[in-house]
Amino acid sequence: MDDAMENGMGSYQERPRTFPSMRSKSHYPLIFRMLLGINARVLLVLLLLIFGAVFYVGASTSPIVIFVFSICIISFFFSVYLTKWVLAKDEGPPEMVQISEAIRDGAEGFFRTQYGTISKMAMVLALVILGIYLFRSTTPQQESSGLSRSTSAYITVAAFLLGALCSGIAGYIGMWVSVRANVRVSSAARRSAREALQIAVRAGGLSAIVVVGMAVIGVAVLYATFYVFLEVDSRGSMKVTDLPLLLVGYGFGASFVALFAQLGGGIFTKAADVGADLVGKVEQGIPEDDPRNPAVIADLVGDNVGDCAARGADLFESIAAEIISAMILGGTMAQRCKIEDPSGFILFPLVVHSFDLVVSSIGILSIRGTRDPGLIVPIEDPMAILQKGYSVTIVLAVLTFGVSTRWLLYTEQAPSAWLNFALCGLVGIMTAYAFVWITKYYTDYKHEPVRVLALSSATGHGTNIIAGVSLGLESTALPVLVISIAIISAFWLGQTSGLVDETGSPTGGLFGTAVATMGMLSTAAYVLTMDMFGPIADNAGGIVEMSLQPESVREITDVLDAVGNTTKATTKGFAIGSAALASFLLFSAYMDEVASFAHVSFKEVDIAIPEVFIGGLLGSMLIFVFSAWACSAVGRTAQEVVNEVRRQFVERPGIMEYQEKPDYGRCVAIVASASLREMIKPGALATISPVVIGFFFRLLGHYTGQPLLGAKVVASMLMFATVSGILMALFLNTAGGAWDNAKKYIETGALGGKGSDCHKAAVTGDTVGDPFKDTAGPSLHVLIKMLATITLVMAPVFL
Amino acid sequence: MDDAMENGMGSYQERPRTFPSMRSKSHYPLIFRMLLGINARVLLVLLLLIFGAVFYVGASTSPIVIFVFSICIISFFFSVYLTKWVLAKDEGPPEMVQISEAIRDGAEGFFRTQYGTISKMAMVLALVILGIYLFRSTTPQQESSGLSRSTSAYITVAAFLLGALCSGIAGYIGMWVSVRANVRVSSAARRSAREALQIAVRAGGLSAIVVVGMAVIGVAVLYATFYVFLEVDSRGSMKVTDLPLLLVGYGFGASFVALFAQLGGGIFTKAADVGADLVGKVEQGIPEDDPRNPAVIADLVGDNVGDCAARGADLFESIAAEIISAMILGGTMAQRCKIEDPSGFILFPLVVHSFDLVVSSIGILSIRGTRDPGLIVPIEDPMAILQKGYSVTIVLAVLTFGVSTRWLLYTEQAPSAWLNFALCGLVGIMTAYAFVWITKYYTDYKHEPVRVLALSSATGHGTNIIAGVSLGLESTALPVLVISIAIISAFWLGQTSGLVDETGSPTGGLFGTAVATMGMLSTAAYVLTMDMFGPIADNAGGIVEMSLQPESVREITDVLDAVGNTTKATTKGFAIGSAALASFLLFSAYMDEVASFAHVSFKEVDIAIPEVFIGGLLGSMLIFVFSAWACSAVGRTAQEVVNEVRRQFVERPGIMEYQEKPDYGRCVAIVASASLREMIKPGALATISPVVIGFFFRLLGHYTGQPLLGAKVVASMLMFATVSGILMALFLNTAGGAWDNAKKYIETGALGGKGSDCHKAAVTGDTVGDPFKDTAGPSLHVLIKMLATITLVMAPVFL
Repeated sequence: MDDAMENGMGSYQERPRTFPSMRSKSHYPLIFRMLLGINARVLLVLLLLIFGAVFYVGASTSPIVIFVFSICIISFFFSVYLTKWVLAKDEGPPEMVQISEAIRDGAEGFFRTQYGTISKMAMVLALVILGIYLFRSTTPQQESSGLSRSTSAYITVAAFLLGALCSGIAGYIGMWVSVRANVRVSSAARRSAREALQIAVRAGGLSAIVVVGMAVIGVAVLYATFYVFLEVDSRGSMKVTDLPLLLVGYGFGASFVALFAQLGGGIFTKAADVGADLVGKVEQGIPEDDPRNPAVIADLVGDNVGDCAARGADLFESIAAEIISAMILGGTMAQRCKIEDPSGFILFPLVVHSFDLVVSSIGILSIRGTRDPGLIVPIEDPMAILQKGYSVTIVLAVLTFGVSTRWLLYTEQAPSAWLNFALCGLVGIMTAYAFVWITKYYTDYKHEPVRVLALSSATGHGTNIIAGVSLGLESTALPVLVISIAIISAFWLGQTSGLVDETGSPTGGLFGTAVATMGMLSTAAYVLTMDMFGPIADNAGGIVEMSLQPESVREITDVLDAVGNTTKATTKGFAIGSAALASFLLFSAYMDEVASFAHVSFKEVDIAIPEVFIGGLLGSMLIFVFSAWACSAVGRTAQEVVNEVRRQFVERPGIMEYQEKPDYGRCVAIVASASLREMIKPGALATISPVVIGFFFRLLGHYTGQPLLGAKVVASMLMFATVSGILMALFLNTAGGAWDNAKKYIETGALGGKGSDCHKAAVTGDTVGDPFKDTAGPSLHVLIKMLATITLVMAPVFL
Repeated sequence: MDDAMENGMGSYQERPRTFPSMRSKSHYPLIFRMLLGINARVLLVLLLLIFGAVFYVGASTSPIVIFVFSICIISFFFSVYLTKWVLAKDEGPPEMVQISEAIRDGAEGFFRTQYGTISKMAMVLALVILGIYLFRSTTPQQESSGLSRSTSAYITVAAFLLGALCSGIAGYIGMWVSVRANVRVSSAARRSAREALQIAVRAGGLSAIVVVGMAVIGVAVLYATFYVFLEVDSRGSMKVTDLPLLLVGYGFGASFVALFAQLGGGIFTKAADVGADLVGKVEQGIPEDDPRNPAVIADLVGDNVGDCAARGADLFESIAAEIISAMILGGTMAQRCKIEDPSGFILFPLVVHSFDLVVSSIGILSIRGTRDPGLIVPIEDPMAILQKGYSVTIVLAVLTFGVSTRWLLYTEQAPSAWLNFALCGLVGIMTAYAFVWITKYYTDYKHEPVRVLALSSATGHGTNIIAGVSLGLESTALPVLVISIAIISAFWLGQTSGLVDETGSPTGGLFGTAVATMGMLSTAAYVLTMDMFGPIADNAGGIVEMSLQPESVREITDVLDAVGNTTKATTKGFAIGSAALASFLLFSAYMDEVASFAHVSFKEVDIAIPEVFIGGLLGSMLIFVFSAWACSAVGRTAQEVVNEVRRQFVERPGIMEYQEKPDYGRCVAIVASASLREMIKPGALATISPVVIGFFFRLLGHYTGQPLLGAKVVASMLMFATVSGILMALFLNTAGGAWDNAKKYIETGALGGKGSDCHKAAVTGDTVGDPFKDTAGPSLHVLIKMLATITLVMAPVFL
C-alpha cells in the first residue's frame, strides 16, 4: 500500500506535463502583465496622478463624493495589506504546491476562455445599444438640458462597458485570490485550525472588499465624471436628480457579465462535481477528492471559477444595481419634494456602502489567529467565530447607518424624516438577519427539516427526492412573508416620513423601500467574505485530501468545509432577498423612465388586459425554461465527464491501484469547453426574450391601437419573472442545501452512516441538489436583476 | 409452486374477513338505498313528475333551456343504457370476483369516510358564507331589483350546497362505475382485446356523460329556478344579465368538493402506489400488482378513488366553473351592447355542452367491439381506435359549434359576429388539440425528450432526476406560447366582431376568449371518457395479474394500460389548458363583481403598488407551498406503507412463498386514514389563505387610506397564483408522465431493460413522478379554479 502510494505520489512530479497548453500561456492577463512590468515608483506616481484627477473631479461635485473616494481608496490599501498578509503565508510541501498549481492553471485557463467569449458578446451588445440609442427619441428633460441623442448614446455605452469591465475584474480577483489562498489554508491546517480559518477569512475578505469597493468607486467615478462633463446643475443643462438614470448602463453591463460568469462557472463546477461523484463515489466507491479520480482536479477548479469568480461578479452586480436604483429613486423623490440640496438623497447609497467597507473590515480583523505558541487549542466551532465577527459588523452597521441617515437625509422640510429612514434601514438589517436564520433552519442538520429529509432517505432514493423537493417548495413561505412585511413596513415608514410633494401627498414610500434594501446590504462585504470563505475552505480540503495528509489535518479542513457549506447557503438567502428588493426598486425606476420617454404618465400596469396577463405568463415561463436549461446543461456535461472518467478507468486499469496516473487535464478541458458551449443557450434566452417580447407587443399595440402596450407587457413580464424567479431560486437553493446537509448528517453516522443504503439515497439527493443550488439558483439571482436592468436600458425598443 | 399458488389463492376465500368493518356497512349511500327501496313504478312516476316540473319551469324561462333539459335527459337515458350494457358483461371466474370485491369494499369504504369529512367541512363553510352574506351590503342592482340581503344569502348558500352535492355525486358515479367495470374488462380480456377495450370505453363514457350532463343540468335548473323565483325581467326586478352572478356559489361548491376529493384521492392512490413499489419492486424484486405484496389491494383501490372519483369531480367542477364564467361574461357583454334578447349569449355555454353530450356519445358509440365470432383478431393499437373516435367527435363538434353560434349569437346589431365567435371556438378546439399533441411529445417515448431522459438514467439515479426536472420545467414553454396565442387571437376575434357598447367602442373581446374556452371544452365528455378509460384498464390489469391469468391475457391488459397512461397524461394537458382560460374569465368576472359591490369602477389591478405586488408574491408562494404539502403528504404516507409492508414481510415470512396470506386490509386502512389526515392541511391552506389575505389588506387599506386595497391585493394574488399554478402543474404533470414512460421505454428492453442499473434509476424517477403527476399536479388544476370561485363568493369580505 505504501509502495502504491509512493508510486501514485511520484506521478505528481509529472503534473505540469498534463497541462501543456495552459502552462505555455502566462498566468496573468495582459493588463496585469503590463502593470507588473512598470517600475514600482513610476506606478506609484501614475496612481497618485489618477487619484489626484479623481479627487479633483470629485471635489467639484460634492464633498460627499470626496468622502466616498477616500474610504474606497483606504479600503484598497487595506486590501493590499491583506494580500501581502495572505501571500506571505507558506504554500506547504511540494505535493500541495503541485496540486494547487494544477488547479490554478485550470481555473485561469477557463477564466481566460470564458471571459474572452463574454467580452466578445458584450462588444456586440454595446454596438446594438449604441444603434438603438442613436435612433431613439430624446426625453423632454434631455432636450431642455441640451443632452443630444449621440451624447446620451455614448454615455450609455460607456457606462455599459465600464460596468462589464469592472464586473469582469471583480470576478477575476475573486478567483485570483482563491487559487492562491487555498493551498495556504491547507498548509496552515497542518499547524492550527484557527490559523487556517484566519487565512481563509482574510483571503475571502480581501476579495469582498475589492468587489464592494470597486462597485462603489465605479458608480462614484461615473457620477462625478458625468456631473462635470455635462455641467449638471448649471443653467440650461441637466438637473442632478436626472443624473442617476444615466448610470443604468453600468448596472446592465455588470449584470450581463455576471449572468454569463455565473452560468458558465456554475455549469463548470457542478458538472465536474456531479461527474466526479457519480463515477468516483457511487460506482468505484472511492472517497471525494481522491487523487485516483480523473475528474478531481476539474472539480477543484470548478470551486474557483464557479463559486469564487462567479459569486464575486454576482455580488458586484447586486451592489451596483441596488446603488443605482436607490440613486434614481432618491433623485426622483428629491425632485418631487423640491428638496433644496438633493445630493444627500442621491449619494446616500454610496455613503452606506463606504461605511459597509469600514465596518466589514473591522469585522474581518476581529477574527484573529491564536498565536500563543505554547497553547494547543482544541478545534473551536468556526461557525461561532464567524458569527461573532458578523455580530460585530452588524452592531457597527446599525450605528453607522444611523449616522449616515442623520448626515444625508436630514432636511428642514421634514425634520424627523431621517429617523424614519434609519428605521427603514433597521428593517433591512433585520430582514437580512431573518433570511440568514430561515436559510439556516431549512438547510442545517441541527434542525427538524433536514433531519426529516435524512429519515426519508431510509425508504429509498425516491422518497428522498420527493421529500427534498417538498422541503424546497415549502421553504419559500417564510422568506416571502418576511420580504412582504419588510416591503410594507419600509414603504409605510417612508410614506409617513413627512416628505410631501407639491400637492401635499406623501411621497417617501418607495425611497423607504430603497433605504431598507441598503440596510439589508449594509454588511454586504462581510457576508461576501463568509461566502468566499466556503469555496476556499472546500478547495483547501481537496488539496489536503489529494496530497494524502494525515487524518488530523483532514479533520480541520472538513470542519471548515462544513461551515463553508452553511455560510454559502445563508449567503444565497441574503442574495435572493436583496435581489427581490432591488428588482422592486428597478421596476419603479423603469416605470419612471418609460413615463419620461413616452411623455405621458405611466403609473399603472394593469394585469386585467389580456396582453399584459400574457406578458406575465411569458415572464414566469422564462424563469422555468431558464432553470430547465441551466440544470440540463449540468446534466449533459456531467454525462460527458462520466463517460470520460469511465473510459480512463477502463483504458488505464492501474489507476485504482495508484499504478497509473489519471489524465486530469483532459477532464478539465472537456468540462471547460462543454460549459462554455452550454452557457450560451440560457444566457441568450434571458437576454433576448425581453427585447423580442417588448418589440413584438409594441408592434401589436401599434396595429391594435393600444399605446405603450410593449412597455406594459414588458413591465408585467418583469414583475412575474421577478416573483417566479425569487420563489424558484429559493426552492432550488434550499432544496440543494438541504440535500447536501442531509447527506452530511448521515455521514456523521446517523441512520446507518457512510456506505449504507440510506447514505446512497442521500448521495442521489445531493447530486440532484448540486445543479439546483450552484448553477440554476444563483444564476436566477443574477437573471432577476439583469431583466430589470435590460428593460431599463432597452426601454427605447418597446416604446 | 402449484401447491403454493393453491395455498395462496385459497386464502382469497377468506378475504371478506380482512375487511370486517367495511363489509358490515352497505355498499350504497343512504340516498341510493332509499331510491332502490322504492317500487320501480312509483319511482318512474316520481321521476316523470320531477321532469314535468323542471320542464314547466324551463318553459317559462326560454326555449333554449327546454332544449338543454331535453338533451340532458336523453343523455341520462343513454347512460342508463350504457350501465345496463356494462353490467350485463360477465365478471369472470371467482378469483377475479373476489379481488374485485376487495377493491370495491376498499374504495367505497374510503369514499364514505372521505366524503363524510368533506361534507362536514362544506356544511361549516356554508354557514360561514351565510353569515358573511347576511352582513354584507347589497349592490345597487340588487337594491333596485328588490333582492333582499337574506334572499341573496340563501340563494348563494343553496347554490353552494347544490354544487357540492352534485360534485360529490359526480365523484361517486365515477368510482361506482370503475369498481364494477374493472373486473368485467379483465374478464373480457380473456376473450378479446377489442371487447375489453370496448367495455372500458363504454364504462368511462358512462361516467363522462353523467358528469358532464349533471354539470349542465345543474346550472340550467338553478338558472331556471332563480329566473322564475326572482321574477327576472319583469318590472322592478332583476335583469336577466345579472342572473349568472348568482350561480357562482354552485361553481365554488363544486370546486371546494373537487379540491378535497382530488387531494385525498391523489394522496391515497400515490402513497399506496409508491409504498407498494418501494418495497415490492425495489426491495423484494417482485413484479407490480403481485398478490404477495400486502399493499397491492390498496394500490388498486387508489386507482379508483384517486383517478376515477377525483377526476370525475375535477372535470365536473371545470365545466361548471367555465359555464358560469362564460354566462357572466355573456350577460355583461349583452348588457353593455344593449342586445335585445340577451338570453342567447347567456345560455350559449349550456347549449355548447348539450351538443358536447351528443357528439361525445356518438364518438363513444363509434368504438365497436368486433363481434365476428369466427375471426381471431390480432391486438390492434388501442390508441389508434381511441384517436379515431376522438376525430369523429372533433369533426362533429366543429359542426355543432358552428350551428350553436349561428343559432344563439346572431344579432342584427352585428350580423357577422357569430362567424367571429365560431372562429373563436375553432381557436379553442385547435388549442385543445395542440395541448394534447404537446403533452404527447413530451411524455411519449416515441419522441426525443423521453428517450433523452431514459438515456440519462444510464449514468445513475441523480442524472435521471436532474434530466426529468429539466424536461418538466422546459415543457412549460410550448403550452404557454399556445395559450398566449389562443388568448390574444380569441380576444381580437371577439373585439372585431362588430359588437360595440353605447360609446361605440368594441366590447366582444373577453366574450371571445370565453367562446374559445367553450370550444376547448366542446369535446369534454369524450376527453373525460379517454381519461376514465385509463384507471379502469389499469385496474383490470391489476386484477388479471393478481388472479394469475395466463401471459396472453396480461399482454392485452398491459397494452390497454399503456394507452391509458398516455390518455391520462394528455387529458391533464387539456385540463390545465382549460383551467388557464377559465381562470382568466373568472378573473374578469371578479373585477365586474367588485365594481358592482363597491359602487365604483374597478378595472385595473396595478402591480406597481407595493401591497398589490406582495399579493402576487403571496399568491405564487401559495402554489409552491400547496405543491410542497401535497407531495410531502404522499411521501409521509408512503413511508407508513413501507414500514407496514416491511413489518408484514418480517412477521409473516411465508408470504414470499405464497404460504401465508398478507393482510391487505391493514394497508388499505392505513393509507385511508393517513390520506384523510393529510388532505386537510393543503386544502385548508388553499381555502383559508385568500380570505385571510383579502381581509388583512382590507383592514390595512382602511387604516392607510387606500380604498379597495383588499380587493386589489386578492386580484393580484389570484393572477399570480394562476400563472404560477399553470406553470407548476405543467411542470409536475409532464415530468411525472415522462419519468413513467422513460421507465416503460427501458422495460421494453432498451438500454439494458428490466433489472439493469439503468432501469433502477428509471424506477426512482417514476417514484418521484408519481406524486407529481397524480397528486400535486391535478390538485393544482382544481386549486386554480377554486381560488377564482372563492374570491368571487367571498368578495364581500375584502370590500
